[in-house]
Amino acid sequence: METNKQLTIGLFGFGVVGEGLYKVLQQTPSLKATIKKVCIKNSGKKRNAPDSLFTTDRNELLNDRDINIIVEMIDEAEAAFEIVTTAMRNGKDVVSASKKMIAENLSALLEVQLQTGRSFLYEPAACASIPVIRNLEEYYDNDLLYSIRAIVNGSTNFILTKIAEEGLDFKEALLLAQQAGFAESNPLLDVEGYDAVQKWSILLLHAYGIIENPEAILFTGIQHIHPMDAGVAKARNQQIKLVAQAQKLKNGKIAAFVLPQFVKQDDHLAFVKDEYNGVVIESSFADKQFFYGKGAGSFPTASAVLSDISALRYQYKYEYKKLYHHKPHELTNDFFLRVYVSFDQLSYIPREEFEWIEEWYVQDDRKYLAGVIAFSNLTQNNWWKENNTSLILFPEPVIEEIETRKLKKRSLELAGII
Amino acid sequence: METNKQLTIGLFGFGVVGEGLYKVLQQTPSLKATIKKVCIKNSGKKRNAPDSLFTTDRNELLNDRDINIIVEMIDEAEAAFEIVTTAMRNGKDVVSASKKMIAENLSALLEVQLQTGRSFLYEPAACASIPVIRNLEEYYDNDLLYSIRAIVNGSTNFILTKIAEEGLDFKEALLLAQQAGFAESNPLLDVEGYDAVQKWSILLLHAYGIIENPEAILFTGIQHIHPMDAGVAKARNQQIKLVAQAQKLKNGKIAAFVLPQFVKQDDHLAFVKDEYNGVVIESSFADKQFFYGKGAGSFPTASAVLSDISALRYQYKYEYKKLYHHKPHELTNDFFLRVYVSFDQLSYIPREEFEWIEEWYVQDDRKYLAGVIAFSNLTQNNWWKENNTSLILFPEPVIEEIETRKLKKRSLELAGII
Repeated sequence: METNKQLTIGLFGFGVVGEGLYKVLQQTPSLKATIKKVCIKNSGKKRNAPDSLFTTDRNELLNDRDINIIVEMIDEAEAAFEIVTTAMRNGKDVVSASKKMIAENLSALLEVQLQTGRSFLYEPAACASIPVIRNLEEYYDNDLLYSIRAIVNGSTNFILTKIAEEGLDFKEALLLAQQAGFAESNPLLDVEGYDAVQKWSILLLHAYGIIENPEAILFTGIQHIHPMDAGVAKARNQQIKLVAQAQKLKNGKIAAFVLPQFVKQDDHLAFVKDEYNGVVIESSFADKQFFYGKGAGSFPTASAVLSDISALRYQYKYEYKKLYHHKPHELTNDFFLRVYVSFDQLSYIPREEFEWIEEWYVQDDRKYLAGVIAFSNLTQNNWWKENNTSLILFPEPVIEEIETRKLKKRSLELAGII
Repeated sequence: METNKQLTIGLFGFGVVGEGLYKVLQQTPSLKATIKKVCIKNSGKKRNAPDSLFTTDRNELLNDRDINIIVEMIDEAEAAFEIVTTAMRNGKDVVSASKKMIAENLSALLEVQLQTGRSFLYEPAACASIPVIRNLEEYYDNDLLYSIRAIVNGSTNFILTKIAEEGLDFKEALLLAQQAGFAESNPLLDVEGYDAVQKWSILLLHAYGIIENPEAILFTGIQHIHPMDAGVAKARNQQIKLVAQAQKLKNGKIAAFVLPQFVKQDDHLAFVKDEYNGVVIESSFADKQFFYGKGAGSFPTASAVLSDISALRYQYKYEYKKLYHHKPHELTNDFFLRVYVSFDQLSYIPREEFEWIEEWYVQDDRKYLAGVIAFSNLTQNNWWKENNTSLILFPEPVIEEIETRKLKKRSLELAGII
């Protein structure tokens, strides 16, 4: 067994996760992993560990030959990138929790891994306690993964749950999330979908070998969810969720986006309430799998860090199979979505750009329509994110054979059925 | 990257899983794994592969120096044990799907792994497509795993679902399961809990470092579930599930058993319907996690085999951390269970052996009681499995502080409240 290797860790960041990690490693000598030095930004703060443990000089860790693992958990993407790449170049394996930094530097980080041969693991960066990266790496081969749909942001899911179950409006629910510690005091990163799309960018790499900057993936958050939307969901016995989705089309290309979605009660994602995360994976071999757990918070994050550290004991590396050992997949914008759009004024909505409209509803001050629109229309325009407009996907939103559908619809119209 | 190693496989067994595996490996050269030889029992059968691939002589595989991996998927425990141990002694890594063989030979198999230093992986042996063994190995450290509860047998879960949702009786539901291919023509191994307890024995090793023969773990199946039980479950808005459970008690010892259980609608296991499996893990770090997927069948099993093969590429081994790197846990019989028992005649039930009885119900020909009984009473006696008697646990069945509970109950009785 190779498990006798002593792991000597240099830790960047000493927030709740870092401190929790320090305590666990200290109390569990059998893990044979110790934190030798912690690099912090602010040396003035009082901390629950000996002063000698801390430094503000990153090179004390990066140049220490005893340290064979760097665990990076800081909040600044640029500094984090510097740290993890230097650490690998200096012969150290790295565990990182910085999703923004990773998502925005996928190519460069892959390059450094190839050049240095070091391990770079980041399970804590996506869905925390759910081992989704490792399972995507190990369990789904290229041609077999049909789709992956996930709730990857706990804060927004908490807010949506409160809106649905307790009838709160968005602002009240957000306040509750902040009070419960599930949303930052500046919650825009969660609420507007930035956090979700960063995680999605990372997972697309492990699911399909796709390297794509988060900003290039279509996304929005839940900031415009209106009480009427919640009412419509309730009337349909559905729930609104912020769903990150990727799906293989018949032409082999991948449709991917992060958008609010009506979710049926028998959808596995309907099971995911409050601040939890969930991932549904459909593949031809394993059929439908569902992973569920806490996606954020100090303990779930620390559990993911620990498991990555533990994997380094046997030199585990991501193989990036779908990228290196297969023809990687490509994203496409060439498909259509079934959408619900609620809005204040009809003039905000480019009706002529819909393939067809199936439903209209007008109330005093808020209206909605349901219809089918080209995905590329959404990527090229912003009308659906502006003027308090709220766009929500219907269940099974992706439509590929638009011509067949159009013909069918027209014949039904001619027959006077619709 | 170490992924360039060519894997040359010797396969034992060519049933649906074996054949599926052969096809996938053939169609996916990027996996760099080929099956060189397949050992079968019956050379007469027509098979969808060249004749030259097959042999009936196991030594042709076990003594072939080119073959570096043995994949064993045969139905006979004794022969399987011979094959996997010889393979490891001959310097080969092994993937096995034989849960019975593994569960009944845990000590011997650990010993051979230590002696030979080879990898012995068996994810397909428990919950197939759900990567539960690997996740228990990697994600839950000794002191942190509070409990694990699981539905590990798809056939019985299919039957219970049909009883609950379509009002079938046990025999009708069993027939349906057989027609759907979810139960063997001789279904006793599933229905009476043997299959479940074998898997549970394997998972106890990875969860808690416990080595225990399946027969030494208290278990039963669903063979005596009565229509009255299904009615009681329905009236309580609960479902009956065959639950494998292990839970850490306050004294650090482990309570473990496989028994039917009433499951509340908000229990994650209530989500697991039909032939699916599910695992709920509670730990202090990751909180509550839920894994869900297909637990049997050719494709889900093949997916687990593939992932184990893929793990051998980077020399992955189970570390058996909870056994080797911690003080392993012990099982205990020293706790109490809240049970429901339905029966035909009162004389079958040793009423005096209950700590107390909370509820009685008498109908023409079937009766039930609800009460608290020592677990050791169940391990030492068989009354609860005989005479068509049906025992089902209540939600949160494990009681540790029996004296406190007794006192409380007595004072409520004295006060005339109950």
